[in-house]
Amino acid sequence: MIKIGIVGASGYSGSELLRFLVNHSGGLQVALCTSETYAGQGIESVLPNLRGFLSSAFEPLDLDSLKENVDVVVLAVPHKVAMSFVPQILAQGLRVVDFSADYRLGDAETYETWYHAEHTSPELMPQAVYGLPERYRAKIRDAQLVANPGCYPTSAILAAMPLVAQGAVELDSIIVDSKSGISGAGPKPRENTHYPNREANVVAYNIGVHRHTPEIEQELSAVASEPVRVTFTPHLVPMTRGILSTVYMHLTEKMSTEEALSIYSSFYEREPFVRVLPLGTYPETKAVLGSNYCDVGLEMDTRTRRVVAMAAIDNLGKGAAGAVVQNLNLMFGCNETDGLKMPGMMP
Amino acid sequence: MIKIGIVGASGYSGSELLRFLVNHSGGLQVALCTSETYAGQGIESVLPNLRGFLSSAFEPLDLDSLKENVDVVVLAVPHKVAMSFVPQILAQGLRVVDFSADYRLGDAETYETWYHAEHTSPELMPQAVYGLPERYRAKIRDAQLVANPGCYPTSAILAAMPLVAQGAVELDSIIVDSKSGISGAGPKPRENTHYPNREANVVAYNIGVHRHTPEIEQELSAVASEPVRVTFTPHLVPMTRGILSTVYMHLTEKMSTEEALSIYSSFYEREPFVRVLPLGTYPETKAVLGSNYCDVGLEMDTRTRRVVAMAAIDNLGKGAAGAVVQNLNLMFGCNETDGLKMPGMMP
Amino acid sequence: MIKIGIVGASGYSGSELLRFLVNHSGGLQVALCTSETYAGQGIESVLPNLRGFLSSAFEPLDLDSLKENVDVVVLAVPHKVAMSFVPQILAQGLRVVDFSADYRLGDAETYETWYHAEHTSPELMPQAVYGLPERYRAKIRDAQLVANPGCYPTSAILAAMPLVAQGAVELDSIIVDSKSGISGAGPKPRENTHYPNREANVVAYNIGVHRHTPEIEQELSAVASEPVRVTFTPHLVPMTRGILSTVYMHLTEKMSTEEALSIYSSFYEREPFVRVLPLGTYPETKAVLGSNYCDVGLEMDTRTRRVVAMAAIDNLGKGAAGAVVQNLNLMFGCNETDGLKMPGMMP
Amino acid sequence: MIKIGIVGASGYSGSELLRFLVNHSGGLQVALCTSETYAGQGIESVLPNLRGFLSSAFEPLDLDSLKENVDVVVLAVPHKVAMSFVPQILAQGLRVVDFSADYRLGDAETYETWYHAEHTSPELMPQAVYGLPERYRAKIRDAQLVANPGCYPTSAILAAMPLVAQGAVELDSIIVDSKSGISGAGPKPRENTHYPNREANVVAYNIGVHRHTPEIEQELSAVASEPVRVTFTPHLVPMTRGILSTVYMHLTEKMSTEEALSIYSSFYEREPFVRVLPLGTYPETKAVLGSNYCDVGLEMDTRTRRVVAMAAIDNLGKGAAGAVVQNLNLMFGCNETDGLKMPGMMP
Repeated sequence: MIKIGIVGASGYSGSELLRFLVNHSGGLQVALCTSETYAGQGIESVLPNLRGFLSSAFEPLDLDSLKENVDVVVLAVPHKVAMSFVPQILAQGLRVVDFSADYRLGDAETYETWYHAEHTSPELMPQAVYGLPERYRAKIRDAQLVANPGCYPTSAILAAMPLVAQGAVELDSIIVDSKSGISGAGPKPRENTHYPNREANVVAYNIGVHRHTPEIEQELSAVASEPVRVTFTPHLVPMTRGILSTVYMHLTEKMSTEEALSIYSSFYEREPFVRVLPLGTYPETKAVLGSNYCDVGLEMDTRTRRVVAMAAIDNLGKGAAGAVVQNLNLMFGCNETDGLKMPGMMP
Repeated sequence: MIKIGIVGASGYSGSELLRFLVNHSGGLQVALCTSETYAGQGIESVLPNLRGFLSSAFEPLDLDSLKENVDVVVLAVPHKVAMSFVPQILAQGLRVVDFSADYRLGDAETYETWYHAEHTSPELMPQAVYGLPERYRAKIRDAQLVANPGCYPTSAILAAMPLVAQGAVELDSIIVDSKSGISGAGPKPRENTHYPNREANVVAYNIGVHRHTPEIEQELSAVASEPVRVTFTPHLVPMTRGILSTVYMHLTEKMSTEEALSIYSSFYEREPFVRVLPLGTYPETKAVLGSNYCDVGLEMDTRTRRVVAMAAIDNLGKGAAGAVVQNLNLMFGCNETDGLKMPGMMP
Repeated sequence: MIKIGIVGASGYSGSELLRFLVNHSGGLQVALCTSETYAGQGIESVLPNLRGFLSSAFEPLDLDSLKENVDVVVLAVPHKVAMSFVPQILAQGLRVVDFSADYRLGDAETYETWYHAEHTSPELMPQAVYGLPERYRAKIRDAQLVANPGCYPTSAILAAMPLVAQGAVELDSIIVDSKSGISGAGPKPRENTHYPNREANVVAYNIGVHRHTPEIEQELSAVASEPVRVTFTPHLVPMTRGILSTVYMHLTEKMSTEEALSIYSSFYEREPFVRVLPLGTYPETKAVLGSNYCDVGLEMDTRTRRVVAMAAIDNLGKGAAGAVVQNLNLMFGCNETDGLKMPGMMP
Repeated sequence: MIKIGIVGASGYSGSELLRFLVNHSGGLQVALCTSETYAGQGIESVLPNLRGFLSSAFEPLDLDSLKENVDVVVLAVPHKVAMSFVPQILAQGLRVVDFSADYRLGDAETYETWYHAEHTSPELMPQAVYGLPERYRAKIRDAQLVANPGCYPTSAILAAMPLVAQGAVELDSIIVDSKSGISGAGPKPRENTHYPNREANVVAYNIGVHRHTPEIEQELSAVASEPVRVTFTPHLVPMTRGILSTVYMHLTEKMSTEEALSIYSSFYEREPFVRVLPLGTYPETKAVLGSNYCDVGLEMDTRTRRVVAMAAIDNLGKGAAGAVVQNLNLMFGCNETDGLKMPGMMP
């Protein structure tokens, strides 16, 4: 059994990871849950859905003793906090999966531009593997440090990648319009997560400056082998979970919806968690609710030679905790789908 | 492997049963899914969350050939339709679990009073076992015909039973005020399930005449060994899944919240899916969302010597498909919790 | 023109009052809006729905200069804060309408029992008029200090009053089960108003200890001319506005639904904002959304001789700001319905 | 008093028009409400929010007698039905405002391409005035036939128009990504308006073929004096009312957000119902809920030289019934804002 330590296990990503792992039958086991806020409190009293599953308490973080208790550390803490822990954990020989953005970008300069913070361990950035199995499966298996992708980037990259890889897209034409549930903002109550402010309300935010932008660009640039810039606009819509990203791309040459779908189907043929939808069917967030699936669909706007490609994920599933389980499975030689073969919850 | 045939598998109860069963590792296997509406269509195209799990199509129902294909039939069809099938299925020696109300009540007269329909196989009513494991576990194991409880009754009975069993309650004082999600009305679009009619809206319905009333009364009467009449008021609240039943009971003698909780804890001590919440904590529907759990809590209104007991379930989980899985597990010697150890989905 | 000063105008009650008053054509005018949090900021920037209606800024509260600027003060501040202002305002000869609970109860002892705070101006309690026009219309006209009713009490009292007044109810049998939208908790983000915690979730709270209990009891006792105790259970349901209160009462004698409805219709015959619904129609919160209406309906549970009476209001409308406008209209000789003839917003 | 006849008054557009008109003080009066479905039934029993406002019943439509009862006819019926009535109504000398799409487009060919139906009165198309006061105020005053704009086009045109008029936009670059509440689909229950299908769900629909596309293109082409083609993708989001349209446009030359906002502010300077939001503030649908306002905001994505312009409306308000009131006010010499000075309902 591989023993997992989750640092920051009371937040949404951490607790969703617990929800996935309590029934993982393939050799992964939760050995330690830390929480700054709830240290000493029973996990069940903080996370009532898990009542009956975990009788232990949240513990304070003791970086020095991790090695004695766990084989791998999952960091479910904010950016900047993550990089304050990672070097010390890696130094103990432990492997790390990091939910945060601290090691997703390839260079410190881009990080500092978008996050307005100095990166304190830039030397680790090159060795971190971007934890998107659909691109880096082999590297993830051997990685010491996996940077789990952001929720928006996961949906945007999976929606755009096959046609970008094909060279079929004008690279300066990519626009990502994302609609997200509120849980992406985390468990801490704020103005913009206050129920009356979000019910029956849709609004865009962080236009042009959202920190997931460079992550999308980095990966699509790598796919294209050319620099890609995207316009990315996230919106909040009145639901708790789920992201639908609608990606607009101008094609270099005319293409039918059927042709494009065929490219997508081939591209994702062996992917266990990407489902390419048939002609005329578009992704809906509810079909992947609570799961690790990403549904991808598309339609050609033939009059303007634009493709409208869409991806739906659960931001806490494939967009966070599900991806971590998938990465842990790869890192520790489990079956990649262990603990993840739950369908979305519908209706 | 026990082969299960689901009749009416495209409805909410049926499709939720599929969601539970696709990962059942304990020996239950879906062998046949029929649907009147969707016969011939791929299951995946009708139930997009199950894409990748079930490659077969819905089939038309052929009562005569069931025996060749399945070991047990789950009927996920409306009342009246169910009793038109059951005698013929039982006659083939197949066991049956019936989602409908047709065999829940002990006598045809009560059925006819509340359902305004003649019961066509009253001779089978006495042999049907009411599928509430918390009361009839032993009988369910051996039953040929299990009548799966209604969603409201499951919540009301589990909330009231321990104190009624204790003889601590004035039996003419029981009031059940239930708040239900919309999915209880099934997948067919109607006025009262139309999104704009239900969003931001709360309303009571079927006051004094809801058909789950005699079911609650029958079981609480059996518990009390005396006739019990309840006032039952169901309400629709703006959510898809979940029932919270608030049960008011006048006590025969003064009792503290702690004493009452202690009675509940003892009563449900060995129940794998009833969780008695600690003092000061009340059930919330989201903690059991998508699961087979029932959370029970209570508070004493000492000024009026009334207890306010509450139970939360997912109407499609413990209130329908989860209970069927639990019953199938019992009937076929599986571990009672197989396929059901999924926590609720929170947030 | 009567000049109104609103103290605490940026909260939900205050801003809803602004929404009602911007189009009041009958002689009421907003002359001053104070806000501790937003003093100095433009009202429009804080309340974007009011953009174009109010070009002024929130001001700090200066108790001493109120007299120079306004004819009446509406206090939209929390309890305890209200009573720290009221004596001084009254002393200036200004009339006051208080949203808070500080002057709703008739005696300081009850206040202190339920609010766990000492009342600092008990001598003013007897002169305050409980601002429910359906009971105290004449007194409100002449009042110096109007205590605007709580949202739950408004719905519970209006649902129960006609039968209680008739002497038709066993007074120890009254149970109030209320379902409320989230806005009742105010604009400050908290755990229990965090969108992911409230969406798709129903839960009871403050059972047996909610502070609106003595208010319901006080008024129903006055109606009955006998002490009344009620069991009151508030619930949060996933919507922003609206309260549905379901009131259970055991009748002293058998009565048909038609008879009871006829009593209600007579009782509320001249009330401009209470609508008694016809037989078989139950109140739904959306029909009164954003309005000052209270819809009342009922059904007899003849088997148990209980009546199920229901009232629906918008907690911010008839449950708060609408009632204040109605009271101001009465106090200043306007037409009682001025500024309030807006239907609910449906769908 | 101008007497208004509403044909199809029980649908969402018609009933919202009633909600606006019951308090119109400027000389417009509802004289006739027809409904095919509800003829003979009391308006109050069908539209419970209007209880107490309209004591009459829905009537069957008698085209021949309209002239005797009304001065103007508002058609709140589907396309194709509208054009089967309009010639006969105009022939009686009555003026018409048509909610439907039948006379929005300038030529029958475009109509037939997008609506897959023959236009039966193409000769009336040129004389119809597109009822967007922000473009055609003067013509609306004198129009016999006003074609009320579609909800999506209203939001898209108002978001894009100032920069298109300025010549600042590459005309082949316009993408409209709209997020709509469910009420746009009307009151008839369907699969895609079924509560459980829409709650917690986001999905795109009618990509590349939505019938509002040619309407957006026609008006932006007129503004630009050049043919404009847009990619338009509507999405359903879980709320009843509201549209947020996010419009992406590539600029011909670099421009700051401040410069662009200044262009918008000038352009809409005298518009009573378009509110240009200040720098850094984006439109949210709730701020215009239930109102006739359109909030417009924008942000420059300087890295890609794209502007992200947004408009929020209530699809039943400024997107339907509010616009009709505004047009009626213009047509009959009322104050343009009569009956429309209601702020949005927030929270």
